[in-house]
Amino acid sequence: MTSQPAAQVDTAQVDTGAFITDAWYVAAWPDEVTRAPLRRILLNRPVLLYRRRDGVAVALADRCSHRFVPLSLGHIEDDDVVCCYHGLRFGPDGRCVHNPHGDGAIPRAAHLPAYPLVERFGALWIWLGEGAADPARIPDFAILGDRARFASVCGVMHVAANYQLITDNLLDLSHAQYLHPGLRVADPVRLRHETRQEGDTVWSFFWRDEGVGNGLMRLLGWPEGRRGNSRAHMRWDPPSLLLLDVGIAPLADDDAPGIDAPSAHLLTPETATTTHYFWSFMRNTGRDDTALDARIRALGVQAFVGEDKPVIEAQQDNLRGADIMAMNPVLLAPDAAGTRARRIIAARLAAG
Amino acid sequence: MTSQPAAQVDTAQVDTGAFITDAWYVAAWPDEVTRAPLRRILLNRPVLLYRRRDGVAVALADRCSHRFVPLSLGHIEDDDVVCCYHGLRFGPDGRCVHNPHGDGAIPRAAHLPAYPLVERFGALWIWLGEGAADPARIPDFAILGDRARFASVCGVMHVAANYQLITDNLLDLSHAQYLHPGLRVADPVRLRHETRQEGDTVWSFFWRDEGVGNGLMRLLGWPEGRRGNSRAHMRWDPPSLLLLDVGIAPLADDDAPGIDAPSAHLLTPETATTTHYFWSFMRNTGRDDTALDARIRALGVQAFVGEDKPVIEAQQDNLRGADIMAMNPVLLAPDAAGTRARRIIAARLAAG
Amino acid sequence: MTSQPAAQVDTAQVDTGAFITDAWYVAAWPDEVTRAPLRRILLNRPVLLYRRRDGVAVALADRCSHRFVPLSLGHIEDDDVVCCYHGLRFGPDGRCVHNPHGDGAIPRAAHLPAYPLVERFGALWIWLGEGAADPARIPDFAILGDRARFASVCGVMHVAANYQLITDNLLDLSHAQYLHPGLRVADPVRLRHETRQEGDTVWSFFWRDEGVGNGLMRLLGWPEGRRGNSRAHMRWDPPSLLLLDVGIAPLADDDAPGIDAPSAHLLTPETATTTHYFWSFMRNTGRDDTALDARIRALGVQAFVGEDKPVIEAQQDNLRGADIMAMNPVLLAPDAAGTRARRIIAARLAAG
Repeated sequence: MTSQPAAQVDTAQVDTGAFITDAWYVAAWPDEVTRAPLRRILLNRPVLLYRRRDGVAVALADRCSHRFVPLSLGHIEDDDVVCCYHGLRFGPDGRCVHNPHGDGAIPRAAHLPAYPLVERFGALWIWLGEGAADPARIPDFAILGDRARFASVCGVMHVAANYQLITDNLLDLSHAQYLHPGLRVADPVRLRHETRQEGDTVWSFFWRDEGVGNGLMRLLGWPEGRRGNSRAHMRWDPPSLLLLDVGIAPLADDDAPGIDAPSAHLLTPETATTTHYFWSFMRNTGRDDTALDARIRALGVQAFVGEDKPVIEAQQDNLRGADIMAMNPVLLAPDAAGTRARRIIAARLAAG
Repeated sequence: MTSQPAAQVDTAQVDTGAFITDAWYVAAWPDEVTRAPLRRILLNRPVLLYRRRDGVAVALADRCSHRFVPLSLGHIEDDDVVCCYHGLRFGPDGRCVHNPHGDGAIPRAAHLPAYPLVERFGALWIWLGEGAADPARIPDFAILGDRARFASVCGVMHVAANYQLITDNLLDLSHAQYLHPGLRVADPVRLRHETRQEGDTVWSFFWRDEGVGNGLMRLLGWPEGRRGNSRAHMRWDPPSLLLLDVGIAPLADDDAPGIDAPSAHLLTPETATTTHYFWSFMRNTGRDDTALDARIRALGVQAFVGEDKPVIEAQQDNLRGADIMAMNPVLLAPDAAGTRARRIIAARLAAG
Repeated sequence: MTSQPAAQVDTAQVDTGAFITDAWYVAAWPDEVTRAPLRRILLNRPVLLYRRRDGVAVALADRCSHRFVPLSLGHIEDDDVVCCYHGLRFGPDGRCVHNPHGDGAIPRAAHLPAYPLVERFGALWIWLGEGAADPARIPDFAILGDRARFASVCGVMHVAANYQLITDNLLDLSHAQYLHPGLRVADPVRLRHETRQEGDTVWSFFWRDEGVGNGLMRLLGWPEGRRGNSRAHMRWDPPSLLLLDVGIAPLADDDAPGIDAPSAHLLTPETATTTHYFWSFMRNTGRDDTALDARIRALGVQAFVGEDKPVIEAQQDNLRGADIMAMNPVLLAPDAAGTRARRIIAARLAAG
């Protein structure tokens, strides 16, 4: 296991109000965006989301260029949005296409920013930065869209905490043993842990050999008491896109099928102290079992909303406005991956 | 129409937290002020309003000179107010007239500011400034008190927005066409518009010749489908006192009576981001018709509370603390009057 | 009576956000602290309170050294507290005694501050300062624990005001005459008042000779209309610990028993603008009368929660963020004691 001595970490000066803008973030799950305007604050900016008649989802600044009223208070007409206040009309590319006033001339400054928005891997990704919006820079979440192998349930949770506190949480799954009774394992001492970094991608691997399955595995069909080789491998890409490969494989002399239950944890900062947490749980068993869908959703809500969210929000509150790294937290072995992630974010922010 | 190119406007540096204090503002409608103490924050100052036994309304700082408790928590005794905390008693002129403690001597610093308050044009006007409080400086709203010609309904609405955003709204009535279905006209292309300025008074004139009446005119008795010459003329005096002359006159060959429905829109800042909006609707028809009173009140509540208020408050929120002019809004033709008003306010504030 | 001319008072520069930390404060009434974790913010710091198995109450920083989550979200195990997030375990002395991660080594920085906490005079006192925590420095409140002479009822009230506004209130009991009808006396002109200071202890004495008892005295058994010598003597010790000796003694030719009803008013700042107000009412009559307990509690709630609290909170709000002394309040005769107390606090804060 890689351990990071506190002395080498220098992220205290990170301004948690600063965001990495040259990056893809999830703006919404596809079914959240319809022909009705949807307003969402992303990286402190008001964003309007809606679909054109041909079904393509678009994202504009949710702030009319004239009096700065939210366009989301207006209505969608054909492919355009019409401001509720004075009737200015904007195309899905942000261009002002109609000024009903005076001589109808459209000042160049009337056009609005449209943000690149792509539907990929079963999610809607937005680019709010200055650099080139190359969808190839979205980390690989092909698994999210692999309906042939996996059934999935997904949702979005609002958390009153800085996104990095959630990243810390996810990159240190040792907390499950304490905070999540439903995910606890009976024999934690058999855990092996390793942190790896490749470029700016960080992995946090957990293995548990020859153990019984936890509550989630049993829910997915793994028999009570049967031993297998468990794994929980978290992959993080900056700023806050995580893929968790969780599963249990049969022992060598066992011909039972293995269970794969990957999940995606896609964090989009709303403000410096609030975050949109998009999650998706996949599974390779009971793919058509809608009752199982509901049980998995309930387990997720219990773990995230009932257990993680109150603790992370209490943590944010307990910081009383300070940056956590500036308060010199004690760093323990399982913080290795989270510390690497924070250092990568700090370097990117410092690079401007 | 006068149009104001953005480049000539230099109001970005206006501190929306600063108020013009040498000016008359409406403190209350007369029937709001009684023998019971009324507290109201005006221009960020706590003000106590009550009536003397002879019915004269007075205004004092609502902050005892001793421990700064609101006097409005106390009670009125004869013409004085008695502090609930230690019994200091103040006359309607702000003088401390009784100190029940020690030797009863009254320190000079115990006296409170009393603010000039006059009942004029059917409203109570307050002067919070340093300069001479000359009631002749109240703009002419004689129409408000003209009970011989007009029936009226009035009210006050609390808006979570800077008063200048409301001034913008009122000086650009083109928004009615988009935001107020009940006031929309069927043939907006026949609108003529003109902006005029005389000293520091700004007018925004709208005419619509030979058109049918809108919903308000029909409510006031103008027959459906009959054509006439409509007008909506807004007069603005600094800082935020507006008189709207709305009506429809019969065509030359028509002997139907015309309809006059002037209204007053009197804005008093509470704080930099909240405003007391006093409104009064008058009409020269159905003067004794209390059912019509109720319908007009309902229309006003629908337009102001149901339509304007949420949009203006969303606009304030969308500014996220910035001054709107510092964000370089696109200025369109109908902004001419509002821009003049903002420039006059900026000049007054700059002059100190 | 000692009167303090305003000119000699120089407490305007006091930062009400600064607290005297080298002092004992009440953290809780003993029965509030159990085997379940209790979180309380004291002097802007999160504090965890709980009892060891042997019943001894302890106080730790309520902020895990690892990720700063409140330990009060965790659970008590034997004499230790276990963090809910990653299972770190801390002894009642604040030492981290178990790190379940990695090699289990415990970094020195993992230990938490434990705060001296003593149970004395029927209250739990905490020391949050740097200096030596000598319980002998707790002012004498032996009367609080004197169950042989007194029955008592106690409670704690949360007040949204700086603690010094409450000290002002308590050191100037002349306000009772105006704010508390239940404590008003019929003949206030016979009041004598004196302020004394000895070291940093301030007394404010009120005597009323040969008067009838007020509502409280009658509630405690003093007959309606019988005359006696009343007293209300307040003792203040910095920063905000007050003992009030209230009672009525029979006249020389009267063999009726006297009534003693001392009370303690122990203020602990929560933040610069909020305070925990611990109160205890004692009496030497009806000591086993639980109905009387209830009536006294109701009287206290009426006076503190119903009468003092709204006025003091309105006072705090009316200051709109300013320090009261910086606003040059008029100082009257009954402010003598409160002004001395403020001067002592200012001197202590200035001394660092």
